[in-house]
Amino acid sequence: MESFCRICDGHWPNEDFYIADLGFSKVYLHEDQFLPGWCVLILKHHATELFQLTDSMRNNIMAEVSLLAQVLQHTFQAAKMNYSLLGNVTPHIHWHLTPRLKTDPNPLEPPFSIKHDALFLSSSERDQRIKVIRENLLAAGSPKNSERALLLG
Amino acid sequence: MESFCRICDGHWPNEDFYIADLGFSKVYLHEDQFLPGWCVLILKHHATELFQLTDSMRNNIMAEVSLLAQVLQHTFQAAKMNYSLLGNVTPHIHWHLTPRLKTDPNPLEPPFSIKHDALFLSSSERDQRIKVIRENLLAAGSPKNSERALLLG
Repeated sequence: MESFCRICDGHWPNEDFYIADLGFSKVYLHEDQFLPGWCVLILKHHATELFQLTDSMRNNIMAEVSLLAQVLQHTFQAAKMNYSLLGNVTPHIHWHLTPRLKTDPNPLEPPFSIKHDALFLSSSERDQRIKVIRENLLAAGSPKNSERALLLG
Repeated sequence: MESFCRICDGHWPNEDFYIADLGFSKVYLHEDQFLPGWCVLILKHHATELFQLTDSMRNNIMAEVSLLAQVLQHTFQAAKMNYSLLGNVTPHIHWHLTPRLKTDPNPLEPPFSIKHDALFLSSSERDQRIKVIRENLLAAGSPKNSERALLLG
């Protein structure tokens, strides 16, 4: 918990976009859905660089990044997943996971470089997309991840 | 080893930019050094998504990503490190690790979005930069990483 951190202070992400708690991280739908399924995975603990984490915490958070990537790839039938840990605006560790669909308008470009009009879903469309991702995360919970699966509920 | 992969086929990166072998990955200096210290970390094994890796391989590669990030942050006194795993052009897993210096021309922008003229170092400048990063990687090798340290030579 760090003061003057907009994540620790609860200013971002907006809780209307909350999908699931994976244990060490929380997952949110990205507000701009111009690339369908774009999600943000937030480390619950305040840290700003991978090398500030213990080996154990880094392994756990990367298992959650990997699980979410697999679920998004499957849900949106992505040709490729993009994983970005930047933090130039908000240093608190958060991953942007971006499915790149076969219908991608600029398939070779990094997700942040694509010029576009922001696509904000209606609240019912947003809730529907959140529901599908949450259900697929739950379905992906293996027996050894029973604790994780419970946290999704 | 995959045919029709420009990494497995040895077409990229250019060996003149080779820095070190960390065990599960090899590190190269990015050819365009407009953001000083930008490196690329290549998984030796052919895979295109994090979730294709075993837990053990994912943990090992992320330990190497973390080590390189720490060394680059220290070497270039970066205000923030950026970590990008995209693969839209070359799907074989490779991480772009980009130090964002206090003198960064566009500190809030993702590294791939910054409009700029490419900065290609002279071969002597390039070799000097490679040498500094390699030496700092070696110095960062802890006793438990003696095998890793040997691979840097």
